[in-house]
Amino acid sequence: MEKFNPVSFTDVAINKGFWRNRIDINENVTIYSVRDRFRDTGRFEAFKFNWKEGSDLPQPHIFWDSDIAKWIESVAFILAKKEDKELYENVEEVISLMEQHQCEDGYFNIAHTVVFPEKRFKVRDNHELYCLGHFIEAAVAWKIHTGCDRLIKIVDKYIDLVIRVFCEEKSAVFVTPGHEEIELALIKLFRLTGNKKYLDLCVFFINERGYHPDEHDARWCNSAYNQSHKPVREQKEAMGHCVRACYLYSAMADLYKETGDKELLSACKAIFRDITERKMYISGGIGSSHHGEAFTVAYDLPPDTAYTETCAAISLMMFADRMKDIELDSVYADTVERIIYNGFISGISLDGRAFFYENPLEINLSDRGRHTSIAHEPEHLSITERVEVFSCSCCPPNVTRYIETMGERAYSVSDDAFAVHQFISSVVKAGECEIEVKTEYPKNGKLTLTAKGMKGKSLFVRIPFWCDEFTSDRAYAKEKGYARYEVKEDVFTLEIDMNMRVKFYHADTRVRACAGKTAVMYGPVLYCAEAVDNGEELFNLSVLKNGNYNVKYSEEYFANVIEIDGLRREYNESLYSSEDDYKDIPVRIKLIPYFAFANRGESDMTVWLRDNA
Amino acid sequence: MEKFNPVSFTDVAINKGFWRNRIDINENVTIYSVRDRFRDTGRFEAFKFNWKEGSDLPQPHIFWDSDIAKWIESVAFILAKKEDKELYENVEEVISLMEQHQCEDGYFNIAHTVVFPEKRFKVRDNHELYCLGHFIEAAVAWKIHTGCDRLIKIVDKYIDLVIRVFCEEKSAVFVTPGHEEIELALIKLFRLTGNKKYLDLCVFFINERGYHPDEHDARWCNSAYNQSHKPVREQKEAMGHCVRACYLYSAMADLYKETGDKELLSACKAIFRDITERKMYISGGIGSSHHGEAFTVAYDLPPDTAYTETCAAISLMMFADRMKDIELDSVYADTVERIIYNGFISGISLDGRAFFYENPLEINLSDRGRHTSIAHEPEHLSITERVEVFSCSCCPPNVTRYIETMGERAYSVSDDAFAVHQFISSVVKAGECEIEVKTEYPKNGKLTLTAKGMKGKSLFVRIPFWCDEFTSDRAYAKEKGYARYEVKEDVFTLEIDMNMRVKFYHADTRVRACAGKTAVMYGPVLYCAEAVDNGEELFNLSVLKNGNYNVKYSEEYFANVIEIDGLRREYNESLYSSEDDYKDIPVRIKLIPYFAFANRGESDMTVWLRDNA
Repeated sequence: MEKFNPVSFTDVAINKGFWRNRIDINENVTIYSVRDRFRDTGRFEAFKFNWKEGSDLPQPHIFWDSDIAKWIESVAFILAKKEDKELYENVEEVISLMEQHQCEDGYFNIAHTVVFPEKRFKVRDNHELYCLGHFIEAAVAWKIHTGCDRLIKIVDKYIDLVIRVFCEEKSAVFVTPGHEEIELALIKLFRLTGNKKYLDLCVFFINERGYHPDEHDARWCNSAYNQSHKPVREQKEAMGHCVRACYLYSAMADLYKETGDKELLSACKAIFRDITERKMYISGGIGSSHHGEAFTVAYDLPPDTAYTETCAAISLMMFADRMKDIELDSVYADTVERIIYNGFISGISLDGRAFFYENPLEINLSDRGRHTSIAHEPEHLSITERVEVFSCSCCPPNVTRYIETMGERAYSVSDDAFAVHQFISSVVKAGECEIEVKTEYPKNGKLTLTAKGMKGKSLFVRIPFWCDEFTSDRAYAKEKGYARYEVKEDVFTLEIDMNMRVKFYHADTRVRACAGKTAVMYGPVLYCAEAVDNGEELFNLSVLKNGNYNVKYSEEYFANVIEIDGLRREYNESLYSSEDDYKDIPVRIKLIPYFAFANRGESDMTVWLRDNA
Repeated sequence: MEKFNPVSFTDVAINKGFWRNRIDINENVTIYSVRDRFRDTGRFEAFKFNWKEGSDLPQPHIFWDSDIAKWIESVAFILAKKEDKELYENVEEVISLMEQHQCEDGYFNIAHTVVFPEKRFKVRDNHELYCLGHFIEAAVAWKIHTGCDRLIKIVDKYIDLVIRVFCEEKSAVFVTPGHEEIELALIKLFRLTGNKKYLDLCVFFINERGYHPDEHDARWCNSAYNQSHKPVREQKEAMGHCVRACYLYSAMADLYKETGDKELLSACKAIFRDITERKMYISGGIGSSHHGEAFTVAYDLPPDTAYTETCAAISLMMFADRMKDIELDSVYADTVERIIYNGFISGISLDGRAFFYENPLEINLSDRGRHTSIAHEPEHLSITERVEVFSCSCCPPNVTRYIETMGERAYSVSDDAFAVHQFISSVVKAGECEIEVKTEYPKNGKLTLTAKGMKGKSLFVRIPFWCDEFTSDRAYAKEKGYARYEVKEDVFTLEIDMNMRVKFYHADTRVRACAGKTAVMYGPVLYCAEAVDNGEELFNLSVLKNGNYNVKYSEEYFANVIEIDGLRREYNESLYSSEDDYKDIPVRIKLIPYFAFANRGESDMTVWLRDNA
């Protein structure tokens, strides 16, 4: 199978429906809202390098640089599609301050210059190279979409310092970054410029990881926390901090694509299977424990204490999306789809202003802080309403950049083929081909496609994981989870119906938390029950899988809401009773898309419902 | 209704069956085993007051005094029934050391003399008065059962100091004890001696509690931790550390009995309802969180993280047992029964040598330390095998003293009535009455009773909570959960059958942790499934309540083992599947008494099983 390349989001005109709505909100609301919150919290002001001990200004944090970098990258993506003088000038102002305050030797990091300059390249977990990685990604996007290379010059100068310190002088106290990110950024910069020094630095960081047990400096965890427990080519299981992990795996996949290093591909494939077959929530979220924001063991997927950070979902999407172009197998784009409709957009409110860091699959408000009759440190549980800013605000600008480029998830091209991975109403240009996709997805599974300029090529259309009845008006061959069509016409038309319907899912029986429970999906969209619709004590609801259901499109969600038959068990008279004196009252259980939970105030919520079958 | 008084355990000759076995093990194994472990750990040696900074001896802990005191009390109870020169001399040796090392002014506390004398009566949570309380209980038992009053003299001198410091000079930095216990001990001493100064000191501590917000010194919790959040007569809910709470409530009940103070009774009744109707595990255990070893909120009864300390079960038994003599209502002795057959004796291994501090209702070995892929502090979960000694060894000697006196739980007398609360094969003497009870309980619910010398009196026999078919060969009136018989013969005989059978219990639907689950009881005995009998992943088992079951007596347990019909769900092919590709395989589920869990090595265990009805 040939290798594919993604189609740039700038060549995908998303014209209506689910993602058009999300992108509109991103461009009209979120990008400004995130900027304003970053202003309020002093993140922009910090670029003036005027914080001093005792000053009134908030002390710059080690990862503030990266928050602004991701926001700049998001602005670049928006400016690729429309003019916005205000945003452009906001970014130019930051770049000017960066030029002004970059150290003579190329170093640039706010906290490590104004707060603790003595710590420069001394603390592995201090995110310096992580911040540089995000500046590199921002610089690449800014160059591509605005033509301006001022940021490129800044990061190039900084990278030269990094090469000197890490590869030549070896004067840093650690060898590889504590938080991966620069690796995948360096490949982006290499792809833009063709300058091999960037690729070499990436290879250095990838190859050295796991060979320096002494460089691990975080005492509260072990070296698996940042995937330094063994050389990357020997890693076959996903371990440690999820975001760090999947940023690394993404870079490994990128590097395989550049170098053809089969050991990297084999590690990536094994790790991908480990995640998606044993450690991934049904929402596509990852991170079963807040301890280290980390993977735990296989099948440990508690819904209420799920960490499942928005950035972790994004990072797995990045990894899966890279893999789909390396080997055509629907498992990769299936995973992307599971994430983008669920654990990714659950992280942002419907109005585009507020965010979750964690995305639990169950909320019991009575557990918040686990009331005891004595005061004590509460157990760790996620917040239950999205908020506009957190002290650790990695997720909001990560959401903005990936919503804006959603079109890039949808299609891939190779010399003689075109692949449709995600179903988004859009017109896409790829070389001399133009393909129009019309669909109301995920409202239903109907799709029409018109392809011009594809005569003699193959068209691949993913048969999604949820679909067990894929029908089209043309014959196709089934290949690795895709329908393959041979295009013989100048204008090729295709009609597909994926028979989207209510489906009840259950987990592998090794998942203790899901024993005897079922989750409802409609196509790629996972559903949940909220107390605001169904009353308190959602754990007393059970689902009648053979009952009637009702599916109704919601213009608010650009997706359906569902009612299903169920039972609600009513109170007994005593704490423990041997009589079946409870009553199971027939009820209609109202389900909304999981991504829309917690948009109507605090409420109990559950994805997994008891199964009465 | 007249008030009852308990019959001393010395007047109850337990002759065979369940409790005879337990008492034999207690007298032949446990009392020595606990002594030897206390020796190994330096608790006896500490009475020589020879610990010094830098010495090789283990540093005496603030509650070591109370461990030995409870052991002495247990020995006194054993010596009441049989001679044992060795045990007698062990105790006399301790008493001699106490005489030798008691301070001039009467103070006696090992840690506060040899380790931190400067802290005397300075730290409310340091257990000084708690230790004195246990010495008082030991002194009372030693005096009653051996006639020796050397310990009485020691505690009397110490109490005089306490009266001077706390009531007269008020020179301690706190007003009431941080850990209740001395209150109920003082009433015992008052009842033995008739000396009102002991009662007055008890009244002082009870009355002052909750009026001194400043005396609370533990920063990690609030004043509810030791029931100091409000005056005791205003307390209507069980709050804080369970053992402290129920020791206080027991003293309040005792004090009501002495003084007739209705406000105390009303508080006790409200609190008792709050516990047994909203905060008690089906095992009779209490303490839903390890945070503060405390009550949490109503219906918060998680089985796996249950704290349910053995001492807490004992303390609730003490409270309930006192209440049963204040107002005849079967709810009290029902609670005692639930505890003694379940959450109390679960704390000791079948061989009488090893103990649990906590008694969880579910064990998932995979959760121990909740493996993550990074190292971290594990979450708090109980140990999974009983051990011979813990650093905090309050439970073992608490078990020995209450097993030895189990006969005292069984019967009460008033001027014109006799009540049977617990069903134990025994001959009891109460004044001119002699009653013989023959039963194999809890093997079955059959009981024959022969009463002599009771003509003209009433006989009350509790109709236990689990019994819905109480038949006897004589007519009775039902009164507050008891069968009331009027005895008109010199020799009165009675045959009862309580129709013991397998029953499936469910919890109040507000108990989230038990939603959709059932627990099996046979009479008063709660059952559990262990992986050692049923394979791993007990959460994949579900119960067929209408299936067949098999009940078989086990000579090892002096109770039955049960097999019921159930299903085991087998693995799916994928992590999330919409097909019902699992199989529900019919299985026989083997259940053993909950009290016997973890006697065959580490194993997963669960009381609550999924309910397939």
